[in-house]
Amino acid sequence: MEKIITVTFEPEGRRVRVQPETSIFQAAREAGIGIRTECGGDGTCGKCRIIVKNKSVINEVTDAERTHLSEKETDSGYRLACRTIPKQNITVMIPEESRIGARKIQITGLERPVPLNPSVKKFHVVLPKPTLSDVRPDFKRLLDHLADAYGLKSLEIDYEVLKKLPDILRDADWDFTVTIWDGHVIIAVEAGDTADKLFGLAIDIGTSKIVGYVVNLMTGQTASIGSIENPQIMHGEDVISRITFAMAGGEKLKVLQKLAVEGINDVLHEACTQGNVDSNDIYEVTVAGNTAMHHFLLAIQPKYLALSPYTPAVKKPIKVKAKELGIKIHRNGAVYVLPIIAGFVGADAVGDVLSSGIHESKEISLLLDIGTNTEVFVGNTEDILSCSCASGPAFEGAHIKHGMKAVTGAIEKVRISPDTYEVEYETIGNVKPIGLCGSAMVDVVAEMLRSRIINHHGRFNPNLKTSRLKKVNNIPEFVLAGENETATRKEITVTQKDINEIQLAKAAMFTGCSILMKRKNVKRKDLDRVFIAGAFGNYINPENAKFIGLVPDVPTEKINFVGNTAVTGAKMVLTSREARETAEILSRRVRYIELAIDPDFSQEFTRALFIPHRDLDRFPSVKEHLERLE
Amino acid sequence: MEKIITVTFEPEGRRVRVQPETSIFQAAREAGIGIRTECGGDGTCGKCRIIVKNKSVINEVTDAERTHLSEKETDSGYRLACRTIPKQNITVMIPEESRIGARKIQITGLERPVPLNPSVKKFHVVLPKPTLSDVRPDFKRLLDHLADAYGLKSLEIDYEVLKKLPDILRDADWDFTVTIWDGHVIIAVEAGDTADKLFGLAIDIGTSKIVGYVVNLMTGQTASIGSIENPQIMHGEDVISRITFAMAGGEKLKVLQKLAVEGINDVLHEACTQGNVDSNDIYEVTVAGNTAMHHFLLAIQPKYLALSPYTPAVKKPIKVKAKELGIKIHRNGAVYVLPIIAGFVGADAVGDVLSSGIHESKEISLLLDIGTNTEVFVGNTEDILSCSCASGPAFEGAHIKHGMKAVTGAIEKVRISPDTYEVEYETIGNVKPIGLCGSAMVDVVAEMLRSRIINHHGRFNPNLKTSRLKKVNNIPEFVLAGENETATRKEITVTQKDINEIQLAKAAMFTGCSILMKRKNVKRKDLDRVFIAGAFGNYINPENAKFIGLVPDVPTEKINFVGNTAVTGAKMVLTSREARETAEILSRRVRYIELAIDPDFSQEFTRALFIPHRDLDRFPSVKEHLERLE
Repeated sequence: MEKIITVTFEPEGRRVRVQPETSIFQAAREAGIGIRTECGGDGTCGKCRIIVKNKSVINEVTDAERTHLSEKETDSGYRLACRTIPKQNITVMIPEESRIGARKIQITGLERPVPLNPSVKKFHVVLPKPTLSDVRPDFKRLLDHLADAYGLKSLEIDYEVLKKLPDILRDADWDFTVTIWDGHVIIAVEAGDTADKLFGLAIDIGTSKIVGYVVNLMTGQTASIGSIENPQIMHGEDVISRITFAMAGGEKLKVLQKLAVEGINDVLHEACTQGNVDSNDIYEVTVAGNTAMHHFLLAIQPKYLALSPYTPAVKKPIKVKAKELGIKIHRNGAVYVLPIIAGFVGADAVGDVLSSGIHESKEISLLLDIGTNTEVFVGNTEDILSCSCASGPAFEGAHIKHGMKAVTGAIEKVRISPDTYEVEYETIGNVKPIGLCGSAMVDVVAEMLRSRIINHHGRFNPNLKTSRLKKVNNIPEFVLAGENETATRKEITVTQKDINEIQLAKAAMFTGCSILMKRKNVKRKDLDRVFIAGAFGNYINPENAKFIGLVPDVPTEKINFVGNTAVTGAKMVLTSREARETAEILSRRVRYIELAIDPDFSQEFTRALFIPHRDLDRFPSVKEHLERLE
Repeated sequence: MEKIITVTFEPEGRRVRVQPETSIFQAAREAGIGIRTECGGDGTCGKCRIIVKNKSVINEVTDAERTHLSEKETDSGYRLACRTIPKQNITVMIPEESRIGARKIQITGLERPVPLNPSVKKFHVVLPKPTLSDVRPDFKRLLDHLADAYGLKSLEIDYEVLKKLPDILRDADWDFTVTIWDGHVIIAVEAGDTADKLFGLAIDIGTSKIVGYVVNLMTGQTASIGSIENPQIMHGEDVISRITFAMAGGEKLKVLQKLAVEGINDVLHEACTQGNVDSNDIYEVTVAGNTAMHHFLLAIQPKYLALSPYTPAVKKPIKVKAKELGIKIHRNGAVYVLPIIAGFVGADAVGDVLSSGIHESKEISLLLDIGTNTEVFVGNTEDILSCSCASGPAFEGAHIKHGMKAVTGAIEKVRISPDTYEVEYETIGNVKPIGLCGSAMVDVVAEMLRSRIINHHGRFNPNLKTSRLKKVNNIPEFVLAGENETATRKEITVTQKDINEIQLAKAAMFTGCSILMKRKNVKRKDLDRVFIAGAFGNYINPENAKFIGLVPDVPTEKINFVGNTAVTGAKMVLTSREARETAEILSRRVRYIELAIDPDFSQEFTRALFIPHRDLDRFPSVKEHLERLE
């Protein structure tokens, strides 16, 4: 029997089984993944670039590849898909530039206006020259002027700037522009009036995606946006695999740091090019990200985030020089990493709260930032509680038989006729489907419950009369799309295990919500607003989310999708020192609840595994709907 | 006529003229300079190491030298004296290790006790481990404890320490010692209780000499002292030549910085070895030095110190990480460079004031730190004025025909019989004399005036009847030691030009004193104390100093020799935060008077050229003495 080779494509996480001697390019076609090509796979155009980490399972680099790839690139694992033949099971990363029609994952988020008061400011200065009657040292001369003209006191100067100060001032004929960071450090002195060239960069390092806003700090407006897949993905799709990789010791943690920095530099480059901004005019970067990304970027030992009791190294914001990390903004530019709340409630969560403004309102809000870990907040201006739920990657397509990320070819919306069991779906990019993404899974579970294909336990109805219900190895599956409809020419189905994965994920989130609400003594009816943040959130059907018990049963108009509020939070602290102070207060004030030690956790979780819940009175609208169906 | 080659030996500044094909080793013997040797100049022992900067004027490196010197050393200009043949005039540096019986220049100074309160402190800490009920981040756990136990607030942590913090705390089983710098930055966390290992280094970078004290910061006691010639001397003996060298551009300034740092590291190594201190237990270095040395060490553009109006870059103290400069103390250790007062009144001068304590007394003090530039201070607790006098290097032996530094073989004391003109002298090391140093020149001028060998104008008495008075090229010289008395078998004389050099030097200093006294409205009789600082000062005869008009005519008991107060000032700011604050206040408060623009400068200087002064009423004790002689 001939050996079959499994090829896994990242970042989709899509798998395909191919015959030996099949090229990666062909495998991608079979998997329905679009890879760029001009020559059609002849090895002449050089467009089908891929990255293979484990070089031992593929053929040697060919001459054709050497003409299109530099030695540095091949050393880093770059290959051409059409010239690469796997010898064993393999994981292949398809970089952004090689992808056809990749849909941008949600990269923007809700923004709340803040008064413009950035941490970096510029001052145009003209000084009198020294004379024998006025021999003040250069720096003192500058300080005296800044104190007199702008009331700036207790200023320091970056040592690198001080070294060159005597030459800079004289070469500029004492007409120059001073850049002051954090209210007290002079980080640049430039000849002439450059006060209008003042930009910042707000970054969110997501586990999957790095997003950056280049912001004009004279106006507070976003000049341009860049985003890429987080290149750390080659060392694990989820946080725990990457921590495990870093724990292997040696320089592994530095590898992750370097990848995060390279990712930020790529985003920076993209955004600067689009916005026509010189990266040397960017003086500060603010960074949000979950605690693991935070530790990776700063090369802080992340091991103990993965080991009980999951303690992070630091809570306070971190200020470092950009060049210390290797971020290619102005050479004396600074990095401000937002503070964190707890081990699994990170700097991104601080951004969520800041952007949603739940801390400024008397209204009681529930905020969920849905991801592999879902952060939940309940509270208002008086007090906010937070927790982290291990919701898992099911909504990102992992652990789901035909699951995939929300990229081109993913089914994103599903409707099932309760009478005929016929399926209607929409795919991202309006192409033939390859698999289904998280928002489709929410629809599928809701629609299957409405159609009685599954019951409250999530179990398939064995008596269903439809050809869409199949059994594979005696396990039931429901066919969403037949072979002739799909790009892969294989059926796309939903299995019993898929339903169970979604049950686990939504139960984890709902348990977080209900424990926080109980601790805060908030009832469902007391909730004034529900915010759903995160890339996934924006595409889900809120009715279906309630129907499967993912969020509490509140009127739909109370549900707000706020998108990537981590990056907008980073933007807020970039443009406003007051917001920065608020972020620091929030990191101390928001109380973290450790779900694992809550006495009600097991019971709440077990009950939430039902669809929507064991206690249907908690979901009156779903109860009513189901009763109508009876 | 055969070519004669001049060899100049540094740091003595001693010159000798030799026949071609004479080795440096032989030339040193002729100059009376002791160079180490075991083989007597056969090229086999490798002890007679010298440094030659200009390789183009010497022979190629020989095989014998290659067996004793590394390639790196020969690249840096190291050679063996016995194998090196100059082809043209040449300057040779004899490093400390190759010298025989070199006398240590004054390296210690007056110390005033200060309450022990160093800027680096250690705290032994035992923390409870994190649990699921106490998941505080590591750094927060530490901060909470330091706040509770010691009232320490608003602490920051060095980013390098933070990175490793999770591992350090757990490897130490939560029993560790924290080092806090500057009251707010955690720069080290070490396993166990290391609180008794806490040292600092106080450094004075003199133009000629670098001196360092290793200080036990638990007791405030000096553990050991190290000192070396300033290795920058190979790029010029005086400040202006080094600035000129640095102005040549390129990496020249960095060369001077590197030499200063290497010098500090050598002093550190010597002192640590002597005191049995581990350099990793040194957490802070405080540095005094004149403004040029300050700029060289920090690689701050020094050009404008040498160009009117002579403005330095900065007045404030500078704090940098030791590793940024390359100083090899604890890896996260800090450097504190004392503040300066003005272009030619540097961080060393701040140390002088601090150590002498003139700012704390109601008594009126005059303080002179004598060097190539002499800093003068007049004042008391109410107000202090300062100025800098271009006294020149005559007192260090330069520009004096048989002048040399105060090292072995230098005549240091001289008496001349007014009747017979016979000369008595003492040499450093009680060896045959090679030349004469600054303190001898003070004696010589005073004794020659007393003996009427010279007059008030400094002119030789042409009618003197003694064989010691000679004429060379029709210019008179006075013979101090005959050929048969000296190590060089050549006469040691004092020339008319030598006397004039001393007149210029002492006139410059006295003009500084009198202008400051006039500005401060202080008369000679109002002076309560006169402090003389600097390496040279300690060896001069105070009566003779007054006699030639170098210092005002005050009772001798008011004159205090305080030695190297720059390094003791650096020690004070190392052991006491209060002294550090005082240094910063002094740098702002001490007023700088620019002599060059004082309307009385020319007249005062011209009058001070007389010996002791044109206005003898200003020197009543000298006047009386001279009248007695009449």
